[in-house]
Amino acid sequence: MTSAPSPRTRLRRLHDKAAYDFATIAAVLDAQPLAHIGHLVNGAVCVTPTLQWREGARVFWHGSAASRMIKAALAAPVCLTVTTLDALVLARSGLEHSVNFRSVLAFGQPEAVTDPKAKALHLEAMMDRLVPGRWPRLRPMTAQELRATAVVSLALTEASAKIGAGPPTDPPDDMDWPVWAGIIPLRQILGTPEPAPGLAAGLTPPVRFPAFGPDQG
Amino acid sequence: MTSAPSPRTRLRRLHDKAAYDFATIAAVLDAQPLAHIGHLVNGAVCVTPTLQWREGARVFWHGSAASRMIKAALAAPVCLTVTTLDALVLARSGLEHSVNFRSVLAFGQPEAVTDPKAKALHLEAMMDRLVPGRWPRLRPMTAQELRATAVVSLALTEASAKIGAGPPTDPPDDMDWPVWAGIIPLRQILGTPEPAPGLAAGLTPPVRFPAFGPDQG
Repeated sequence: MTSAPSPRTRLRRLHDKAAYDFATIAAVLDAQPLAHIGHLVNGAVCVTPTLQWREGARVFWHGSAASRMIKAALAAPVCLTVTTLDALVLARSGLEHSVNFRSVLAFGQPEAVTDPKAKALHLEAMMDRLVPGRWPRLRPMTAQELRATAVVSLALTEASAKIGAGPPTDPPDDMDWPVWAGIIPLRQILGTPEPAPGLAAGLTPPVRFPAFGPDQG
Repeated sequence: MTSAPSPRTRLRRLHDKAAYDFATIAAVLDAQPLAHIGHLVNGAVCVTPTLQWREGARVFWHGSAASRMIKAALAAPVCLTVTTLDALVLARSGLEHSVNFRSVLAFGQPEAVTDPKAKALHLEAMMDRLVPGRWPRLRPMTAQELRATAVVSLALTEASAKIGAGPPTDPPDDMDWPVWAGIIPLRQILGTPEPAPGLAAGLTPPVRFPAFGPDQG
């Protein structure tokens, strides 16, 4: 399950931040549903945000079967990137400022899930990542809805993670410069649920959203 | 300052979510420093996370002058995408689930800022977006540091915003399905500042980080 670095995934700079082991890649993907997928459309790059979820050694996303994003993903290789910003890193000089972050880049040719039953199971898996246990309580998908929904996946065979963490690393000569230095953590949190207009009485909102981090355990 | 939609920025689907006016594009960029930039590298797409900031009708980013990302940005047109997730939208059926979000896509050929004085002013502008007033308090950049830092920018001439907001829009037949529906807001917040090891006594952390939203006013 380890990806050897390809010329694209090998980091030329900042080698200490690179990680190619599968467990690290999986953890970064599982901590952040938002992905940005780069497609080739008529020879030009187009980067589209969407939600991703991982099942084993593949990463999945979905969309309308009629969408340009899905058609582009099935027509040519993509780069899927997932990034979580963890902190602003404030140093004593401008150059040493940075951010702490976790990111994954995955390259390859996505494939469509065509079998309707498999497609439904993958969509249930997506919901289970975001709101565990919700899928069986929903009004079931119709065959028409399932046809209109495309599910695609990409093997995590050419993927790498990059992680920046820790305090600023000012050189010794800057350590006494009289400005505050340290990190400002960033966290994504969930706010108070807002019921839909006309919601029937007696229904309670879900409480667990594990894809949004330990705060929402 | 209004961008007319090009074939790439015109949304084929969900037209109600599309916005091409400059004020909307600027507001989405200003609310989220994290950008994902899609480059062409040897004919393949590569999507890299970085921080962006806007000055007037251009969007900027920076990096090591030796980085692949910067070289790729100057060699061929890019797509810069900025996305903020605002909420999970929980509906009564799987198909109607979505997220509320704000995103901008901008296409074009980035240009390098070559004049050292201009470069320094743009880096100060970046810092002012993230931590207002911090730049003059830092140990000044050296000429060597400035040479090693590349600043690039992209004109917002072919750009569009897409915004999803509001409660779920279940069809009438689904309104009585017995499952909670509504939105789960997502917010990015700042945690407690963590001083760098060895920080001198008497220095206080910054308190304003306007790029991270109204919570951090």
